[in-house]
Amino acid sequence: MNNPLRVAIAGLGTVGAGVIRVIQENGGLIAARAGRPVEIVAISARSRGRDRGVDISAYDWEDDPVALARRDDVDLVIEVIGGEDGPAKATALTALGSGKHVVTANKAMMARHGQMLAEKAEAAGAALRFEAAVAGGIPIVKALTEGLAGNRIRRVMGVMNGTCNYILTQMEATGASYETVLAEAQRLGYAEADPSFDVGGIDAAQKLALLVSIAFGTRVDFDAVAIEGIERVSLADIEQAADMGYRIKLLGVAQANADGLEARMQPCLVPAHSPIGQLEGVTNLVLVEGDFVGQIVCQGPGAGAGATASAIVGDVIDVARGLVMPAFGQPAGALAAANRTAEGLPAAYYLRFSLTDAPGVLARVAAALGEAGISINRMRQYEHADAEAPVLIVTHRAERAALDGALARIAALDVCRAAPVAIRIEDV
Amino acid sequence: MNNPLRVAIAGLGTVGAGVIRVIQENGGLIAARAGRPVEIVAISARSRGRDRGVDISAYDWEDDPVALARRDDVDLVIEVIGGEDGPAKATALTALGSGKHVVTANKAMMARHGQMLAEKAEAAGAALRFEAAVAGGIPIVKALTEGLAGNRIRRVMGVMNGTCNYILTQMEATGASYETVLAEAQRLGYAEADPSFDVGGIDAAQKLALLVSIAFGTRVDFDAVAIEGIERVSLADIEQAADMGYRIKLLGVAQANADGLEARMQPCLVPAHSPIGQLEGVTNLVLVEGDFVGQIVCQGPGAGAGATASAIVGDVIDVARGLVMPAFGQPAGALAAANRTAEGLPAAYYLRFSLTDAPGVLARVAAALGEAGISINRMRQYEHADAEAPVLIVTHRAERAALDGALARIAALDVCRAAPVAIRIEDV
Repeated sequence: MNNPLRVAIAGLGTVGAGVIRVIQENGGLIAARAGRPVEIVAISARSRGRDRGVDISAYDWEDDPVALARRDDVDLVIEVIGGEDGPAKATALTALGSGKHVVTANKAMMARHGQMLAEKAEAAGAALRFEAAVAGGIPIVKALTEGLAGNRIRRVMGVMNGTCNYILTQMEATGASYETVLAEAQRLGYAEADPSFDVGGIDAAQKLALLVSIAFGTRVDFDAVAIEGIERVSLADIEQAADMGYRIKLLGVAQANADGLEARMQPCLVPAHSPIGQLEGVTNLVLVEGDFVGQIVCQGPGAGAGATASAIVGDVIDVARGLVMPAFGQPAGALAAANRTAEGLPAAYYLRFSLTDAPGVLARVAAALGEAGISINRMRQYEHADAEAPVLIVTHRAERAALDGALARIAALDVCRAAPVAIRIEDV
Repeated sequence: MNNPLRVAIAGLGTVGAGVIRVIQENGGLIAARAGRPVEIVAISARSRGRDRGVDISAYDWEDDPVALARRDDVDLVIEVIGGEDGPAKATALTALGSGKHVVTANKAMMARHGQMLAEKAEAAGAALRFEAAVAGGIPIVKALTEGLAGNRIRRVMGVMNGTCNYILTQMEATGASYETVLAEAQRLGYAEADPSFDVGGIDAAQKLALLVSIAFGTRVDFDAVAIEGIERVSLADIEQAADMGYRIKLLGVAQANADGLEARMQPCLVPAHSPIGQLEGVTNLVLVEGDFVGQIVCQGPGAGAGATASAIVGDVIDVARGLVMPAFGQPAGALAAANRTAEGLPAAYYLRFSLTDAPGVLARVAAALGEAGISINRMRQYEHADAEAPVLIVTHRAERAALDGALARIAALDVCRAAPVAIRIEDV
């Protein structure tokens, strides 16, 4: 057996403790697979005394994670502190700066500073790996950067925030409002006290930014992802989408189009019978289309201590086996600047209007759409008790700019009782 | 840019030609990702003149693949000749014997000679990789041996023969018989003229044998897989299973049980709404359960030139990047002899009987099951025009041996008009 790979863990929340549990319970198996033992040497966290359900007495303790990253007896630092700057970034920089490998689950840090960190890693000849930062236990970073590396990637799509998917599926299943389901999710621990990071689409967009970089060979650029959260998805939209054979998902889409690369994280309608449409609860799903492989779909747990630790330990075993490759699958210097367009490819849209119930109203809406070159595929008006008529329209493929113009004109009509709702229908 | 990785291709059927196409079309991308160019140096096939739709004029030609494998100017041999022995095996052995890496799509060879070839590769310090041999374009070998390597694997399941899945889904969709759909599949090129390899479950069982080895750390042992094909699946069973919320799939299952490891490839009933139940046509699906990650499901094209070539080139890029690890994820010498039991864990079963329509008949069948300790979960008797009453039973969990004893006793009853049918219901 070769020399052990000596590991330090910075951060001992549920994920850090999960990593310790994996290495303690499966250490023999990991050594057999890695060709050498993986040994935890030292750990660091804010509170030393807290009970984490694992025995940490055998490991050296450092109060300061940066000091941990500086230790001479460590080959690899696992960064699970979290946060895009602060101690997480300082720890990663220090570790890479002293030639140590870094494995991280930190999507915020990688989405913001990934390019810089990748350059540091390459300069040091060290590995920087982040499988756990994207879609939890699903080995999708590996699939894209290694298994599918012979392909030109055409499209990547993903449902990558369990909190959002749980809320949307619960709204449909129970008929409860967004606010009610969110409160219940917070009570069950599925959503944070401040849920804006999840329901606002930020968390999922960070993951998408990382996937875009490895799929399309561009510098990771979080700001170039167009983001829309699920806060404005109403129960009415969920029910009416279902009635037409769709479900609403917070869906990340990245694809090449004629103007560059579009990357969006937004609520979308998808066919209810498609793999994405069928996704329930907190499971994540990522779909990849390559020019030779066709379409690959992977699903699995997107969060949780065990799944995240599984991804981290997979990265550690790669390093133990000697794999040192560029973080984003190509040398950082070779990654292209993202030439993204906010504008997506034309798509069909689901539209919902609340209109005054009076003669000629529908004609005025239809005319406004027609004048913008937007043609109607399907229309439904539901029975209603009051003077406000709910009208649903599914359009044929339309340019978003043209649609937005038409919607602005319709919103300004005196017959329009509330801001029109427009949700993209995604081909999957 | 570093020195090129010099590649030879043995076999120029659709897959070999597909590999050439990938390397020709995506060569720049592959070089960027691999950190060095991947160059085809020489090729070999039975017929030099045949038009394969790719330009092969730039490559040296060898009539003999073994001579190809001996060339000094080659670092890696791609073996896509096929067949478990003969020139494929001779080529792989020669290449490994001279220290060259081997990438193969040959499940038959790997399922039969994988252990020996892995030992040769390790002795030579060469890589032996076979992603393309299992589930086509899905990078499942990589997921199991690398991404999920921190986990103790509890169960692996897979639908891995597109021909069988096409036949079963078409029977259900069209109401046509097995024979009719098979003939149509042969006409369309989805099934071979001699389909026994596919419909008999052999092809899928070879893939399962490879998955078992990498998932459970055992020596690959094709003979230890219990195999049953789809030839005896009747339209009646498909329709009646559907009526009870199930679909029939040719399903590979490998899991640890108290007596060792069970590995089976057989038609099973699975819930119609599960990811496996929803699988249509020629798509493959593999499900993995690990102790920390939970359940990961991957699906994608299981065959075809592009998908298979994608998997091969992924393996080649790994080697170009310098990854040389044991073929089955652990040193060949460390792999355990398979201690398999033919007996699976207890399961629920779907049973179909054709019984004489006379008083007391059902009671005799129920009594025979009860005496064997097999209890009935659901029973249906369908309306029938003739004297033969079709009776369906879904049992609670039962031992297969006890069930087989009861079925033998029922088959011997004078009221039993045809051999009883028993199909396992798999929890998925």
